Amino acid sequence: MDSKNESIDSTVETATTSRRGFLGKGAMVSLAGAGVVLGLAGCKEDGPAGKATAAPGKAGAADGGHVAPGQLDTYYAFISAGHGGEVRVLGLPSGRTLKRIPVFNTDCMVGWGVTNESKAIMGTKADGSLRYTTGDTHHVHGSYNDGTYDSRWLFVNDKIHSRLARIRMDIMECDKITAIPNVMGFHGIFPDKRDPVDAAINHTTRVFCGAEFHIPLPNDGRDLDDPSKWGCLFTCVDAATMEVRWQCRIDGNMELLATSYDGKLAAATQYNTEGGADLAGMMSAERDACVFFDIARIEARIKAGSFTTIGGSKVPVVDGRKLANADPKTALTCYVPVGKNPHGVNASPDGKYFVCAGKLSPTATVIELAKVLQWFNGELKAPRDSVVAEPELGLGPLHTAFDGKGNAYTSLFLDSQVVKWDVALAIAQFNGDKSVKPIIDRADVHYQPGHGYASMGETKDADGKYFNSGNKFSKDRFLPVGPLHPEAEQILDISGAKMVLVSDHTAYPEPHDGIIVKREFVKTKQVSLMTDFPNAVTAETAGIERKGNKVHVRLMSQAPSFSMPVIKVKVGDEVTLTLTNLDKVEDLTHGCAIPNHNINFIVNPQETKSVTFKTDQAGAYWIYCTHFCHALHLEMRSRLLVEA
Amino acid sequence: MDSKNESIDSTVETATTSRRGFLGKGAMVSLAGAGVVLGLAGCKEDGPAGKATAAPGKAGAADGGHVAPGQLDTYYAFISAGHGGEVRVLGLPSGRTLKRIPVFNTDCMVGWGVTNESKAIMGTKADGSLRYTTGDTHHVHGSYNDGTYDSRWLFVNDKIHSRLARIRMDIMECDKITAIPNVMGFHGIFPDKRDPVDAAINHTTRVFCGAEFHIPLPNDGRDLDDPSKWGCLFTCVDAATMEVRWQCRIDGNMELLATSYDGKLAAATQYNTEGGADLAGMMSAERDACVFFDIARIEARIKAGSFTTIGGSKVPVVDGRKLANADPKTALTCYVPVGKNPHGVNASPDGKYFVCAGKLSPTATVIELAKVLQWFNGELKAPRDSVVAEPELGLGPLHTAFDGKGNAYTSLFLDSQVVKWDVALAIAQFNGDKSVKPIIDRADVHYQPGHGYASMGETKDADGKYFNSGNKFSKDRFLPVGPLHPEAEQILDISGAKMVLVSDHTAYPEPHDGIIVKREFVKTKQVSLMTDFPNAVTAETAGIERKGNKVHVRLMSQAPSFSMPVIKVKVGDEVTLTLTNLDKVEDLTHGCAIPNHNINFIVNPQETKSVTFKTDQAGAYWIYCTHFCHALHLEMRSRLLVEA
Repeated sequence: MDSKNESIDSTVETATTSRRGFLGKGAMVSLAGAGVVLGLAGCKEDGPAGKATAAPGKAGAADGGHVAPGQLDTYYAFISAGHGGEVRVLGLPSGRTLKRIPVFNTDCMVGWGVTNESKAIMGTKADGSLRYTTGDTHHVHGSYNDGTYDSRWLFVNDKIHSRLARIRMDIMECDKITAIPNVMGFHGIFPDKRDPVDAAINHTTRVFCGAEFHIPLPNDGRDLDDPSKWGCLFTCVDAATMEVRWQCRIDGNMELLATSYDGKLAAATQYNTEGGADLAGMMSAERDACVFFDIARIEARIKAGSFTTIGGSKVPVVDGRKLANADPKTALTCYVPVGKNPHGVNASPDGKYFVCAGKLSPTATVIELAKVLQWFNGELKAPRDSVVAEPELGLGPLHTAFDGKGNAYTSLFLDSQVVKWDVALAIAQFNGDKSVKPIIDRADVHYQPGHGYASMGETKDADGKYFNSGNKFSKDRFLPVGPLHPEAEQILDISGAKMVLVSDHTAYPEPHDGIIVKREFVKTKQVSLMTDFPNAVTAETAGIERKGNKVHVRLMSQAPSFSMPVIKVKVGDEVTLTLTNLDKVEDLTHGCAIPNHNINFIVNPQETKSVTFKTDQAGAYWIYCTHFCHALHLEMRSRLLVEA
Repeated sequence: MDSKNESIDSTVETATTSRRGFLGKGAMVSLAGAGVVLGLAGCKEDGPAGKATAAPGKAGAADGGHVAPGQLDTYYAFISAGHGGEVRVLGLPSGRTLKRIPVFNTDCMVGWGVTNESKAIMGTKADGSLRYTTGDTHHVHGSYNDGTYDSRWLFVNDKIHSRLARIRMDIMECDKITAIPNVMGFHGIFPDKRDPVDAAINHTTRVFCGAEFHIPLPNDGRDLDDPSKWGCLFTCVDAATMEVRWQCRIDGNMELLATSYDGKLAAATQYNTEGGADLAGMMSAERDACVFFDIARIEARIKAGSFTTIGGSKVPVVDGRKLANADPKTALTCYVPVGKNPHGVNASPDGKYFVCAGKLSPTATVIELAKVLQWFNGELKAPRDSVVAEPELGLGPLHTAFDGKGNAYTSLFLDSQVVKWDVALAIAQFNGDKSVKPIIDRADVHYQPGHGYASMGETKDADGKYFNSGNKFSKDRFLPVGPLHPEAEQILDISGAKMVLVSDHTAYPEPHDGIIVKREFVKTKQVSLMTDFPNAVTAETAGIERKGNKVHVRLMSQAPSFSMPVIKVKVGDEVTLTLTNLDKVEDLTHGCAIPNHNINFIVNPQETKSVTFKTDQAGAYWIYCTHFCHALHLEMRSRLLVEA
């Protein structure tokens, strides 16, 4: 199957066709390729009736995707990079990648995983090498104040090694990584928006983390052959200290998370509530659930000392499984039945609803939070009674976004569409009004959308301007680059009645969730203070200090020179080089590479970074500046002389 | 200096102003900030007279930078990523990043640096860990056939560890990395275009590599205190085998390289011909050089056995220093004096000239290759007589590109401009015609351009459509993202008399050189053959094989399942997992992550990859698919059970 791209059909690129004819049946066949019957109600190859192609973007339209040279974007997007392990910062609507923030991956440009400071954040083994160099980020969310972003922090998960990372928004760098004990497949994540008890605390103080894979508890070799004994924990991390506060054991596997604007509830969609360990087992139940957590009750229970711990972990664990929570008045959790193997759960900006996307059910389930609270108060007969709508949307609903005007936008993976629907009309329909049609519009996207998110859509300030569709397959949408395709992200203008596709852009695999933040909400620091770095080198401390075979080289940079032209050490030394960038001009970053010693890192203006390395071979090594700084940048180098 | 971005001046973004007022004097002050006097003839803060702002791109213009959704780009750009260590593939004019090709860096998305196959290419230490995880790519060039790109290979340097990498163009993955002995600061690189002797070989068979930093030869601890004894080698690598063929010692430090279309000559710009070891020493000479190599003579010399070797290296080395090459008729090298500390050297598409950019001289030097050959034949009095033009262009000329219509485009770092000039007019002026004005146009770029390159500009097919300006500072050009700014790349439409700026796009620091290739010249392979992988797993070979504590797990993927739901091993095993992706559909890539074992990698359709890891802790670990593949992607997992 050597399908060489011998020629590109030039008719394709001149027309702004959506090229759906290339897919259609073929895509469905490939998706069912492994012989799995999806078992979807209403599944038909041509998808549901009524779909319409989104109008292609009009280049040059005031609201189009083109941002002319000299213009700034109006939004930031903070997007997880999947198993690239990083977080990306984009400008929208242009799609320009403004920054990559290395988190769980290494990045030899900035020196993430190279400098001592980054290694301390990432975590090391006894020998000083990095514990992990891989990660899988899925969900990026910002910290809140009064129901909207406060530009303090971003939080992001690592699904491979079950770690939570925090990013400082002012400098857009990761400052903390916390390993979560006794979980695997940490997937969903959401910060809280308000304290569940103290109403004066109207900002993020907790981050909730959902585990997708059930494992033996503790995972020390026990119960390997009996997955029915395995379990999943819902975890609460302190946003300020990044310490794990508590965990709650639940039934089933958790997918995505949402939190309420009043701080009282968090919830996670769940598949595999049946506790299966293989594909068939994970799909046997006809309904799965959205599990709600009563945060105040859980914390009261723990405060009362009524908890256990697991293995060597000291984190308090409470039991949130169904059997232990049959009485609503004391229950920590409430399992609301929703469509089979649901995926996303998203909070509406009015604070009233959580919407669960069905994935293997062609529906979304709208849950009214006030009713869930009624259930916890013993005032609602059954959890399912909190469901107030369940519109049929199409095939493979995955995620839902909101425009703040009462409309929801749900991605349909199998239909390769985004469907716009009216939440109030869906509720009316669910209540028996057969005259209403909740679905307002459908837009084709290219192809197989996963996450979709709207501008400010996860805040009370949802503004209904843009929707970003993170598409899992790009197929023929971009120039071919060999077997590995980029993913396709598409920006839809959702400010009108009909969705308008304004731009396609590529994403290095694999983007998952993201948030779109109005630029006014992002406050950055463009130049650090030298005093932010306790190990800053000054004219007084600069130089070489030796203690036995440990040598500390304290160096400064100022374009186009390092402060010492010659640095002499000996073979067998353990050298720590600390570098402070004396330059104060914004953007005047220097790099520092040491040939044959696997060192490169940067120092932004007024910053200090350090590296430690062994000198195991005599010779001369030119330390040089790698980050273009000056007309004499290439001449900016010092000699590291390693004497035998 | 806590310069928080409290508010963004909204007047800035509505006008497509070039915002040069923000810089001007300030930039000059910062660039001279370390007290270095640039000593430029004609240096004045406002730059040379006659500069004009490039017209901002008209969004929606047929030749603009906006590529509407559904449209394909018309060009590929292959761009080095500097100390990010990778190569990037962009579509132009959109600026979409189509792919990142990890080379000297690690990439936990594809598993570069994780899989056994990638580790073998990158190089490992005795303990199996990677030797280097950092790199600094500067120059990417494609292989040639008949003077234009043949879509076989890309070559790229690593300046930190002096390695040459090759990328297969069909799959756009690195397939070879060669360490170059006895050099440091390997910077310039260029493939040859034709054999210097056998005219029938009209394609790339050699890659030339220039070393920038002089070091002791060999670099084993000798001569540490006497840099006057240090030296630099020019290296020839075999393009097919990637073995080092020969080296030639020269005087001075080499910057960039160029090769002639007839295959006879290669050349490198040189600064520090004075052999200085610090900044002042490197700038003392008033002129530096462009050193030419007579390839046929060097190879004849080596064939005759007249060479030495250095240290443990078996690579033949000839002496190309000035003193040893005084007689033109036997000389291996010819040192043509050019402006002080020159930077780029570029070959004109008509095959006649190399143009050296002055950097610390406000000029470009045009060297006629026929005259250099005359010198080698003893028919030209002095090397400098090969200079046929030396137009004054502006401050900080770094690189020159060509449009195939007789015009050259030189980047001016200090002036933040691209200057378009007519080569024939410059020659006429040099010959004494005072009436001609070689400079045709100037375009402001934002800010401080380094490399600039034109569409097909380094081939005989130069088409004069686009010029990409890789700018080293973006300053206020994009939304702020903290202390580390993206670089700015700008696309100019050069098809008319005046250059037109059509788009700004960002680049993760730090882009250097690149090439722009018409899409018709790029032939990719979208799906591999399973037989391309000798270790492919089939239904017959799949399963678990144990030899002592070495366990080989042979696994297959087919959406949405791995072939074994349970894989049992024991604590202390060394497990090799080989995974073949049975899916054949283009773009149907799977990922394979193993929690707590630092494993993630992908397998594209029909590909096979392997990883080896130790199992040092009993427990259950869910191997899961990280690359979205199917509606049941999240359910695609297997249990790795590690028994105590």
